[in-house]
Amino acid sequence: MPHGIFGVIMAGGRGTRFWPVSTRALPKQFLRLVGDRTMLQATADRFDGLLPREDLIVVTGCEHAGTVMEQLPWLDRSNLLLEPEGRNTAACIGWAAEVLRSRGFGSSLMAVVPSDHVMETDEGFRETLRAASIPASEGRLMTIGVSPDRPSSAYGYLMRGSELSPGVYDVAAFREKPDEETARGYLAAGCFYWNAGIFLWTADRILEEISLHLPRLAEGLIGMGGSLSPDAESYGVLPSVSIDYGVMEKAEAVAMVPARFSWSDVGDWPSARRCGVGRGRVIVVDSEDCTVWNEGRLTVLMGLKGVSVVETPSVTLVMSDEYSQELRKVVADLEEEAPELV
Amino acid sequence: MPHGIFGVIMAGGRGTRFWPVSTRALPKQFLRLVGDRTMLQATADRFDGLLPREDLIVVTGCEHAGTVMEQLPWLDRSNLLLEPEGRNTAACIGWAAEVLRSRGFGSSLMAVVPSDHVMETDEGFRETLRAASIPASEGRLMTIGVSPDRPSSAYGYLMRGSELSPGVYDVAAFREKPDEETARGYLAAGCFYWNAGIFLWTADRILEEISLHLPRLAEGLIGMGGSLSPDAESYGVLPSVSIDYGVMEKAEAVAMVPARFSWSDVGDWPSARRCGVGRGRVIVVDSEDCTVWNEGRLTVLMGLKGVSVVETPSVTLVMSDEYSQELRKVVADLEEEAPELV
Repeated sequence: MPHGIFGVIMAGGRGTRFWPVSTRALPKQFLRLVGDRTMLQATADRFDGLLPREDLIVVTGCEHAGTVMEQLPWLDRSNLLLEPEGRNTAACIGWAAEVLRSRGFGSSLMAVVPSDHVMETDEGFRETLRAASIPASEGRLMTIGVSPDRPSSAYGYLMRGSELSPGVYDVAAFREKPDEETARGYLAAGCFYWNAGIFLWTADRILEEISLHLPRLAEGLIGMGGSLSPDAESYGVLPSVSIDYGVMEKAEAVAMVPARFSWSDVGDWPSARRCGVGRGRVIVVDSEDCTVWNEGRLTVLMGLKGVSVVETPSVTLVMSDEYSQELRKVVADLEEEAPELV
Repeated sequence: MPHGIFGVIMAGGRGTRFWPVSTRALPKQFLRLVGDRTMLQATADRFDGLLPREDLIVVTGCEHAGTVMEQLPWLDRSNLLLEPEGRNTAACIGWAAEVLRSRGFGSSLMAVVPSDHVMETDEGFRETLRAASIPASEGRLMTIGVSPDRPSSAYGYLMRGSELSPGVYDVAAFREKPDEETARGYLAAGCFYWNAGIFLWTADRILEEISLHLPRLAEGLIGMGGSLSPDAESYGVLPSVSIDYGVMEKAEAVAMVPARFSWSDVGDWPSARRCGVGRGRVIVVDSEDCTVWNEGRLTVLMGLKGVSVVETPSVTLVMSDEYSQELRKVVADLEEEAPELV
């Protein structure tokens, strides 16, 4: 390894399922949902001890440049990649890889992580990446699998294949978010892992795979030539596809290491309560499985089960758990009718 | 009838079941829950056409004198009876009767009404009182029965007895709030009416009955001598009992007329939605039977049934319908812990 590992933090995304707290102006990853660090800050902190801060790269929407600089004031401006618009994870990752290659670090490892996940513990995270760095250096596309502790239908799954080397496994299959029964089967089978969306590989290798499976994206990235501020037109035409669907599910050299940390993607208000997300003064009468978020008010819950009560100065959301996926539609409708609220 | 009818509006009470909108400082009867008139104003308006405004008497807690004067600026100050503390309806009514007697109107009729009920229509209310005024002038203690349109277990009931004169009935029995099954039986029986807590009688007659059934109250009232501002000690020792329990259930000369109006006591947040109580901007997704009250915010409901979401600047209450009677306890606890919120 000529240069250890670069960290690439993907900090795009709207966090729609965390509306009304997460908004276009300040999405989920920039919020203090758990503890007193924002999710972006916690994500950056997690790399301390694994790599120097100057080797951290953040990719985010250009409208959030100020927020990132404020939250990570030490970040080298040349390591802040500002997307003119979000084009999904393959473009984001490909761009970061292209920038590394253009700086002469094509053979270096890059650890790619979302900026809105919760992990215990950070040391487990670093250990896992260290374990993955050996096969990654040898050309594998490494992904991290989290042992499920419940039959969640909110995550994609990895099916563990044969052991390639101690603690490193072939990925026998990728599975989309399953229905509940299938998820129970996965849990019982014991060889399925949640796909955490955390990857490790060399910049050259992922670009090679992008060329193979997403040639139009590869072309576009080469056209951008490692620029830090591509024009909106060049970036806007990149194919919008996830790295999982576009590359990982098709590539040969994919492998996984099991996570040495417990993990949550803090995907929506109901799941957030498992991570201790919640804020405000609350009185609870005969209620369970509720999420409460308020900013300085008192929230009183009486006789509720599986409900999220989320308040901002202008909006109150009261949502039964099974509707957390519908929030997207409410926000989409409000984009038209009341853009100031989203 | 030497003087037509006096109206006596009982405007005491905390409206605890309407917390957090109803507070100690501004209870339910002073709020605009339905339409643009406060409940007190709507109650006073209802007498227009039946009696002149100078014959309206309001009894309320002394701390609400300013609020009443503000909401009914035309009210004669000598018709505002200020209770040093609430002592239930028998004391309140007895005091008003004693004041009328001391002014020489002992043989006049007094119509006693709560200040926090909703009626359609006001003309029906006046017609009903006119119908009741004949037997009341003859010495009957008249009460108004409302035909139930559903088996409510939230109200007390009157059982209609024999017809004493056209449209005037003996009250065969008073029944406390029944359980649901009993309430269904009452509805099926056809001779049970909701006890609306609206009464008509002469001041002399109700004082006579109070002497008979509540001699300690009668004694206390005589001691006060029709004073407009009794000292806290004299008033505070009056027995605290409802006029229903203390007098009506025991007296002989009780009779009823059926109400010629539809009615609701707007008793709690769930029942309030039937009266059109609700305020604020709301987005509803797959939700039914919900009450929403907010003041300038947006409330979004998703997947809820039978829930009240009530917001003030400092509190949000989210309450499943079957807990509306428990609200009292929450408020009682807060009296200690956070008196500024109740």
